[in-house]
Amino acid sequence: MHADLLIHSAAQLLTLASPAGPKRGAAMQDLGIIEDGAVAVAEGEIIAVGTTAELRATVQARREIDAAGRVVMPGFVDPHTHLVFAGSREDEFELRLKGATYMEIMAAGGGIMNTVRRTRAASEEELAAQAMPRLRRMLAHGTTTAEAKSGYGLTTADELKMLRVVDRLAGQQPVELVPTFLGAHAVPAEYAGRADAYVELVIEEMLPAVAAYYREQGRSLPFCDVFCEDGAFSLEQSRRILEAARGMGFPLKIHVDEFQPLGGTRLAVELGAVSADHLVCTPAEEIALLARSNTIAVSLPGTPFGLAHPAYTPARAIIDQGGALALATDLNPGTCYCESMPFMLALACRYMKLWPAEAISAATINAAHAIRMGHRVGSIEKGKQADIIILDLPNYRHLPYRFGTNPVQMVIKRGQVVV
Amino acid sequence: MHADLLIHSAAQLLTLASPAGPKRGAAMQDLGIIEDGAVAVAEGEIIAVGTTAELRATVQARREIDAAGRVVMPGFVDPHTHLVFAGSREDEFELRLKGATYMEIMAAGGGIMNTVRRTRAASEEELAAQAMPRLRRMLAHGTTTAEAKSGYGLTTADELKMLRVVDRLAGQQPVELVPTFLGAHAVPAEYAGRADAYVELVIEEMLPAVAAYYREQGRSLPFCDVFCEDGAFSLEQSRRILEAARGMGFPLKIHVDEFQPLGGTRLAVELGAVSADHLVCTPAEEIALLARSNTIAVSLPGTPFGLAHPAYTPARAIIDQGGALALATDLNPGTCYCESMPFMLALACRYMKLWPAEAISAATINAAHAIRMGHRVGSIEKGKQADIIILDLPNYRHLPYRFGTNPVQMVIKRGQVVV
Repeated sequence: MHADLLIHSAAQLLTLASPAGPKRGAAMQDLGIIEDGAVAVAEGEIIAVGTTAELRATVQARREIDAAGRVVMPGFVDPHTHLVFAGSREDEFELRLKGATYMEIMAAGGGIMNTVRRTRAASEEELAAQAMPRLRRMLAHGTTTAEAKSGYGLTTADELKMLRVVDRLAGQQPVELVPTFLGAHAVPAEYAGRADAYVELVIEEMLPAVAAYYREQGRSLPFCDVFCEDGAFSLEQSRRILEAARGMGFPLKIHVDEFQPLGGTRLAVELGAVSADHLVCTPAEEIALLARSNTIAVSLPGTPFGLAHPAYTPARAIIDQGGALALATDLNPGTCYCESMPFMLALACRYMKLWPAEAISAATINAAHAIRMGHRVGSIEKGKQADIIILDLPNYRHLPYRFGTNPVQMVIKRGQVVV
Repeated sequence: MHADLLIHSAAQLLTLASPAGPKRGAAMQDLGIIEDGAVAVAEGEIIAVGTTAELRATVQARREIDAAGRVVMPGFVDPHTHLVFAGSREDEFELRLKGATYMEIMAAGGGIMNTVRRTRAASEEELAAQAMPRLRRMLAHGTTTAEAKSGYGLTTADELKMLRVVDRLAGQQPVELVPTFLGAHAVPAEYAGRADAYVELVIEEMLPAVAAYYREQGRSLPFCDVFCEDGAFSLEQSRRILEAARGMGFPLKIHVDEFQPLGGTRLAVELGAVSADHLVCTPAEEIALLARSNTIAVSLPGTPFGLAHPAYTPARAIIDQGGALALATDLNPGTCYCESMPFMLALACRYMKLWPAEAISAATINAAHAIRMGHRVGSIEKGKQADIIILDLPNYRHLPYRFGTNPVQMVIKRGQVVV
């Protein structure tokens, strides 16, 4: 068999093979490791996986990469990012260190509305130019597919602008982008005290406009997401938006239980959301519901770290009860300015007691399923897209054991070496 | 005036100028910022510092670097590392996540003695080869000067071997290395139950041998350091070693209060140690003593982070009482496999509530004084060594605001571009 590329002699090839869907519970410990592993690629797809000896016997490759002494694994999938935004909020970071509360910062015009003002004022070109260095860092840290949310526009025109920026960025660099409409990220200042009116706007005007934008291009609809939280959208408001979105054919996501438990996890399960994200203060009975459901738990450990909050997702409970857990960065300018999935693994092991293998499953195959990309990416299996990274590490346990540096040596997207 | 190099147009040039010694208390907030800043270098030294307009009027340079939109600052100084060691301990990391205690791991032959066995078995060449990638990562993250300890040999021959490896590494790559003798890092297995006999060995055989090694080369003595901790060396044993070392002319350092408060901080102040390091559970009265003394407090936030322990150095109290605080990585294979000083700043701000400017002072000029290198490095001042880094950040607050990625774009050591 002829291949464009043969990666061979990997100390450990982590296949993450999981043909039946996301890895749940104890299955997250199984990385499908092939020692002295090899993978062959043709036309951007994986055409064979096995030991180096097996593939050498059957594959003639135009190019070879020797991964001796290194780990080869699927590219990371980052299933929750606020990639597109204008400006930054380092001043608020310092104010928080000096003791200002989040509410004081909000009252001074800070917080999400700070970024909304600047994002509204920015052109598509400016927004894309500001996001591009973040995408370069994501790619350099091994992320080959990422979700990207709107949510700093909060008008129909500005939300559509953000979704167009995601499309523009997808065509300009290698990281594959999966869009999410998050018009219900915050109640904008001009709707202060009239949250229900803003909910009407999201349902009556934004959702149809967003659906039309994708349908006109013959594309499937993006995710619809809601920030269900005190100060953002109540459980009832979240339900109205998500039910309307579901009725129009949007797949669902929801931000739940970041600061206050409002019942959003139960809602996610009830509505069949693809994922429920954050999950910091989720009550035990909702964790149990979630673990038995098909909704994927997306944990964002960079956010409590970024805020220096002590509480993280009860990820151990989710996995131990048989749930499917994914990890994401939550990259955003307020609470988590971090593009690195390797760092999320370091956090997940230390603060949520995930085992290294579980954290890797959460950041690859499960993250792919959390954005409905599990059929194409997230594992090294025949027929899947050739999204592969090579780590300058002798075995997979080094990935979370070390921290604060970048172990990614080479990144391959659709069969092309891009880093 | 003629220069080899002119770096100009920096959005912010952080001089860290502090001619009178380390920055103490409120002075740590002052970074000596020059906007549109420039620095001129000749023969590896800084010959002029000012605004771009000022230097353009007086300097003719053979090479120019445009730092527009970027931060220019002194290279980081990392004043506490265990750079030289053989092997790694990722298996113990996983065992800890699964609930094993440090004592269980010790009983199974793990912990420091795990690394000691492998370090004793390794040749100088092997030890240097294993440390080299760590030095490359340190340099890539902006560290231009670092302390490096012995302490995994624990025989006279193996401790000297480690110190020779430090010398070898110093000649093979750009990071300048300052050695520390840490024969009293642990009581080796062959002295189990006979700690006092090992203390005798350190005092009677190791210290003289180490002193002879440096004196024969006409060099000043390295630091002598002791791990004062339950399970390592008692306060009385630490005192005996440090007093003997001081009597022979060694400058002193001491690991104190990492897990148990034994009175080591008071001892450090009494003996005039150059630094007291770790300082996690130090009692308030010893913090007050330290803050009034000339002993520099070296905080190692990567260690609690690495262990996922909740307690960090009471750094705010040290600074607020007028003390001089420095930051270091504590790079080591057990608790903190991290070479990045930028990540230590991110931790220091979040978990110790340092302000961004204080953290930068702690990682440059104060870190330099913590290893008695403050006269040559740690600030951008005329006559100092040209150890300079350029950050791909628009202002200094971005340095700790972002985390988990590397903001260092260019590294200059003794006037040479090395990254």
